[in-house]
Amino acid sequence: MAPVSISDITSRLAGLSFQSDKIVEHAAAKTAQEWRDALAGKSQGDLVLTKTLLFKPKTAKTAVPTPVLVIAKEDTETSAAAIGKLLNLKELRVASEDLMKDVMPGVENKDDRDLISLSTPVALRFASGTTSVFLTGPEIKTYLESLQNKQANEVEGTLTNAQIRVVDFASIKKDEVAEKPVGAAVSKEAKEAAAAKKKEGKKEDAYEMAVAYTKEGDFPGWYSDVLIKGDMLDYYDVSGCYILKPWSYSVWQAIQTWFDGEIKKLGVDDCYFPMFVSSARLEREKDHIEGFAPEVAWVTRAGSKDLDEPIAIRPTSETVMYPYYAKWIRSHRDLPLKLNQWNSVVRWEFKNPQPFLRTREFLWQEGHTAFLTEEEAGREVRQILDLYRRVYEDLLAVPVIPGVKSEKEKFAGGYYTTTVEGYIPTTGRGIQGATSHCLGQNFSKMFDITVEDPRNPGQKAHVWQNSWGLSTRSIGVMVMIHGDDQGLVMPPRVAHVQVVVVPVGLTAKLSEEDRKNIYDTCEKVAADLNAVGIRTKADLREGYTPGWKFNDWELRGVPVRLEVGPRDIAAGEVKAIRRHDNNKSQLSMGDLAQAMPKFLDEIHDAMFAKAKKSFDEHLYKIDKWEQVVPALDSKNVLILPWCEAEECEDDIKDRSAKQSTEGQVVDEKAPSAGAKSLCIPFDQDRFGKLEPGTKCIGCGGEAKRWTMFGRSAYPFATDCLNMPAYFGPFSPLN
Amino acid sequence: MAPVSISDITSRLAGLSFQSDKIVEHAAAKTAQEWRDALAGKSQGDLVLTKTLLFKPKTAKTAVPTPVLVIAKEDTETSAAAIGKLLNLKELRVASEDLMKDVMPGVENKDDRDLISLSTPVALRFASGTTSVFLTGPEIKTYLESLQNKQANEVEGTLTNAQIRVVDFASIKKDEVAEKPVGAAVSKEAKEAAAAKKKEGKKEDAYEMAVAYTKEGDFPGWYSDVLIKGDMLDYYDVSGCYILKPWSYSVWQAIQTWFDGEIKKLGVDDCYFPMFVSSARLEREKDHIEGFAPEVAWVTRAGSKDLDEPIAIRPTSETVMYPYYAKWIRSHRDLPLKLNQWNSVVRWEFKNPQPFLRTREFLWQEGHTAFLTEEEAGREVRQILDLYRRVYEDLLAVPVIPGVKSEKEKFAGGYYTTTVEGYIPTTGRGIQGATSHCLGQNFSKMFDITVEDPRNPGQKAHVWQNSWGLSTRSIGVMVMIHGDDQGLVMPPRVAHVQVVVVPVGLTAKLSEEDRKNIYDTCEKVAADLNAVGIRTKADLREGYTPGWKFNDWELRGVPVRLEVGPRDIAAGEVKAIRRHDNNKSQLSMGDLAQAMPKFLDEIHDAMFAKAKKSFDEHLYKIDKWEQVVPALDSKNVLILPWCEAEECEDDIKDRSAKQSTEGQVVDEKAPSAGAKSLCIPFDQDRFGKLEPGTKCIGCGGEAKRWTMFGRSAYPFATDCLNMPAYFGPFSPLN
Repeated sequence: MAPVSISDITSRLAGLSFQSDKIVEHAAAKTAQEWRDALAGKSQGDLVLTKTLLFKPKTAKTAVPTPVLVIAKEDTETSAAAIGKLLNLKELRVASEDLMKDVMPGVENKDDRDLISLSTPVALRFASGTTSVFLTGPEIKTYLESLQNKQANEVEGTLTNAQIRVVDFASIKKDEVAEKPVGAAVSKEAKEAAAAKKKEGKKEDAYEMAVAYTKEGDFPGWYSDVLIKGDMLDYYDVSGCYILKPWSYSVWQAIQTWFDGEIKKLGVDDCYFPMFVSSARLEREKDHIEGFAPEVAWVTRAGSKDLDEPIAIRPTSETVMYPYYAKWIRSHRDLPLKLNQWNSVVRWEFKNPQPFLRTREFLWQEGHTAFLTEEEAGREVRQILDLYRRVYEDLLAVPVIPGVKSEKEKFAGGYYTTTVEGYIPTTGRGIQGATSHCLGQNFSKMFDITVEDPRNPGQKAHVWQNSWGLSTRSIGVMVMIHGDDQGLVMPPRVAHVQVVVVPVGLTAKLSEEDRKNIYDTCEKVAADLNAVGIRTKADLREGYTPGWKFNDWELRGVPVRLEVGPRDIAAGEVKAIRRHDNNKSQLSMGDLAQAMPKFLDEIHDAMFAKAKKSFDEHLYKIDKWEQVVPALDSKNVLILPWCEAEECEDDIKDRSAKQSTEGQVVDEKAPSAGAKSLCIPFDQDRFGKLEPGTKCIGCGGEAKRWTMFGRSAYPFATDCLNMPAYFGPFSPLN
Repeated sequence: MAPVSISDITSRLAGLSFQSDKIVEHAAAKTAQEWRDALAGKSQGDLVLTKTLLFKPKTAKTAVPTPVLVIAKEDTETSAAAIGKLLNLKELRVASEDLMKDVMPGVENKDDRDLISLSTPVALRFASGTTSVFLTGPEIKTYLESLQNKQANEVEGTLTNAQIRVVDFASIKKDEVAEKPVGAAVSKEAKEAAAAKKKEGKKEDAYEMAVAYTKEGDFPGWYSDVLIKGDMLDYYDVSGCYILKPWSYSVWQAIQTWFDGEIKKLGVDDCYFPMFVSSARLEREKDHIEGFAPEVAWVTRAGSKDLDEPIAIRPTSETVMYPYYAKWIRSHRDLPLKLNQWNSVVRWEFKNPQPFLRTREFLWQEGHTAFLTEEEAGREVRQILDLYRRVYEDLLAVPVIPGVKSEKEKFAGGYYTTTVEGYIPTTGRGIQGATSHCLGQNFSKMFDITVEDPRNPGQKAHVWQNSWGLSTRSIGVMVMIHGDDQGLVMPPRVAHVQVVVVPVGLTAKLSEEDRKNIYDTCEKVAADLNAVGIRTKADLREGYTPGWKFNDWELRGVPVRLEVGPRDIAAGEVKAIRRHDNNKSQLSMGDLAQAMPKFLDEIHDAMFAKAKKSFDEHLYKIDKWEQVVPALDSKNVLILPWCEAEECEDDIKDRSAKQSTEGQVVDEKAPSAGAKSLCIPFDQDRFGKLEPGTKCIGCGGEAKRWTMFGRSAYPFATDCLNMPAYFGPFSPLN
């Protein structure tokens, strides 16, 4: 990393309300002593020396470590073992300088125990070695947090995913439970795990798998932990990018297979457009470029040669595709044109990334269609939206409410936007599932996509266009809704493994023959089920206890576990345990293959019913303003009589935010989580007749329709509500 | 485009053997006259003024124009109409300055008729407006050609796809046939098309579709023309990128569906790794970076912010994936690890791009697997290779010969490489279909992918790895092998539309009832066939003659055309025309649905047999050196007794190149097309026993095995043989 100049530092600290007089330059200093001398007289008050240590757990060699940055007074005893134990990390070792630079840009770590002289205010040394900035402890914390958030772009390292916690080293040294971050709860297992390490290899693995946070206690911590330990993804050494492992990618493939089949029935063809967009093309539509320009990734160099013109990586494909629509659509006979592509798009967000929900590259499908008439276009918008509803409800067992977006929330540049809206019980927030837009003729006018109008010979008509998108974010929603403290809970229709068969009752006194019989039976059960298309795995791994295997598959959320032991075989049965409710039952071995599909459907239905119930119970219909904020604070989404005026929506958002006390307490990152309109449900009857003359809950004007309002979008923070409107509809974030 | 400095110019002209004294600076000049004055005394001999005109055809609005750059003496009459007619381009209009910059970087075109003063030598003005370089006509041609080739990186425009031809304007003005580029043959239809334009709208379309070149006469011209007019792809405004339209993408999906199903049977799981690679990661393996660094695209900016570290777009995923293999593989119980991904990779090649064969972004699958033993790895290498053989032979009807690569041709860094090799009759060149590599332990040693060896407790063992890849290049091979002068010929199993039903005999005197009956019958036939899974389309478009529809579907290569007319209906039959051999037969309407699958299989078999025959006939087994070059020149690939020594392979290549006269005549871009080893066929018996003591045809040493040699890889030029070895195996180009 290049030396950091004063202006760098100032910009880094910008907005953190530090005065620049806290930045001083001084003679180069390598050791603590040189440092102390160099800073002599430059600090207010005494210099209290501290140490900054960077540890990596054993996994670090794979370049996606969980680095632990420790800043403490020099005299504090900071035992690596104790820290590792506290954080449930394996064999903490002191990290390399490179990693240090990734984790805390600008801050030097010349040698393993590089000292940063610290007092109140504290001096942080930046990489120039001749510049220090005086900060107080809290200000350091703020700076670290700033790296997590708006300056993530300058941190290709892992701090963006990090937690910052205050630790009482005295106490952990004494093996007491360390002070935990707000809301976090290191599980008993996790602590035992650390203790158990090294002694019992197998047990260690088993414990290592345990989810370290409770879903209610620390939802963000739980979410990442479940995804990693449930084997859905792994972190990657480019910030904001994640590896989709087979366990999650197979869910996406299940969605692809089903959805692609359905749109082909509608006459949609798949195609592939290049990932690159020339700057000229991208910048052609000035209105739009403003919206997404800040997040466009630019290729400026190939090999060692600079390109004459930088080339963008598509953030979405309107400007990529529509010029060709103008070329290909030459007659009304070329209509309708219905193309879809399965691809990845890149939006270089500088906000705190989150797996599936906010990633710099994500997978999606984007459909782009053109019709002669508004009627045809409108029909397709609803057909596609219903397919999205079915993806959520029939595949992912996630209930959604279809409706239309308010003018404020619709796709900027579109005509109207339809959406399926979900609900995350843990946070009480709505979450957008997918959107299907009618673009009207706005884009066909921009890109001059016209045909001779068969209805008015000689007249040219601009085509009517739709666009619609569903992304891998759907997987994140699925995890948040069904997962529990034991890990993932996979809906059976998209589960990579639907049924796992585990041999049990393998006692020492079991004869080799009986033992073999059990294993053979497990394999036969698996074979029979696979033969009828049920994805089944027999877990015959040697050297693992049944208990370990139960943990393993529970963590991964396999819907059904079948246990086969001597007694079961004798009775011609298998024991079936359902992951989502831990219900146990005996199934007859004989007709397992016939019975299992129904068994899985029942699980799907039960999971859906449970999620639906919690959505319904928190779908709170009210008509008095006083009820709004309390209802929001008790994790409801609201059904309000509303006038549909944009100013009124803004007003509702402001007032509900100001009056909310939720922000500070529950969601540090959402100090002002106001309610926005989620959608105007198509099914109005569900909420009873809206009597003529009913007043709008916001402005007291005439209410038009029941509208769903709520805290929304990004379950961990509201900042994604500031996403460029252009991205609105396609964004995985709102 | 920034003004061009003298050094820019020098570098542009580097290697073109121009002396820098040909570059002069002078006063800025806008008009021809100012120009003449500015250059007064600076040119050798008289100034012969010329004009440079840039035309765009009507399609240009879609930003992928076919620009026509005309450089001629000023007094030459260059009628846009005549040029358009010659080139079969529609409504040539003078192009914008922007386009000019794309097409001929550095050369100014201040106004529509900007003049470049030309003499012998000629002065070309560069964009600074105050610099000219004196070139002769031939040197201009060389410069233009250089833009096509090694300087393509400086040309984001379309010249990289352009042809350069010398035109006698006098003759085309007189409506004579213009001088054509070597080997090119503007088809009769194409010329009539130009003439027919504007008069007959429908006929114009019909003619527009006709392929403008013959496959034998101008293979490159034929290839692009067939792809565009067959609706497989469209050009794109980023050089080297192409749009895969449904007609080609569906072929890829057919390959995906079949291949993905097969590898899943082998226990391979799909996953998705990010497209980005940190520079640290990419540069970790110095040996490799050297190989592909020149073609890596770098993201250096997001929005308006420069990234601290440039981030690469994956050219292939070894360095992306293997560090995680090291993390995930912690015990031999984690083996085998078998992952595959369907993705796109980017290699910013500066050579002349070609659809499917050399593109800057291409789609592929890359499998990366790890095993405990060499045996397991070796078994998979062959299993995958056989799947590749079946993709080519059973899906694309393209015969291939499986074998192992020579040491020289194997994947650099791998242990050994297996391949399926095809043959392009039109050029007489071999072409690599796909490769399956055993990487041995080379990568596991680089990335430290180890397990405790269950065979030697306490010992750590490096895993054995394979990697294997198949790209969209396979589609290009399919087109080159089966296509003909009428257009594409699609193998039935991957054809987007397998059967098209066209109503015929719709004479004026036909009763409305009979007419409706014909249409209904067409729809019923299509419905019946679709019901049994045969992709069928009834072409009931109004306003097109049957003849126009025949052309349309022939050009797109639909395997079977069914014609339904009054007489057919009366006889309870349909007329079936097979695209590949134009064979006509009557099929009974009654059992069409039962008969059609077999009918399509017969077509597949016939297409395969035809391609196989031509491959076999040109698989030329020889044992005397004198026969080598003549055999190559008569478009054969050779089966030679060979010693398998690398020096000998180089020697064979050099000698066969030097002695060849093929380069100059047939392939301008391949002045020295030597023979390289394509593979050592696994099926040696096919070529008869190699008697002990048989001499190597190259060095006279002891021959080891029959080896297939030939001119290879890139059917239009041999320069792709210089591809970085690292890319070798995965490259769509060799």
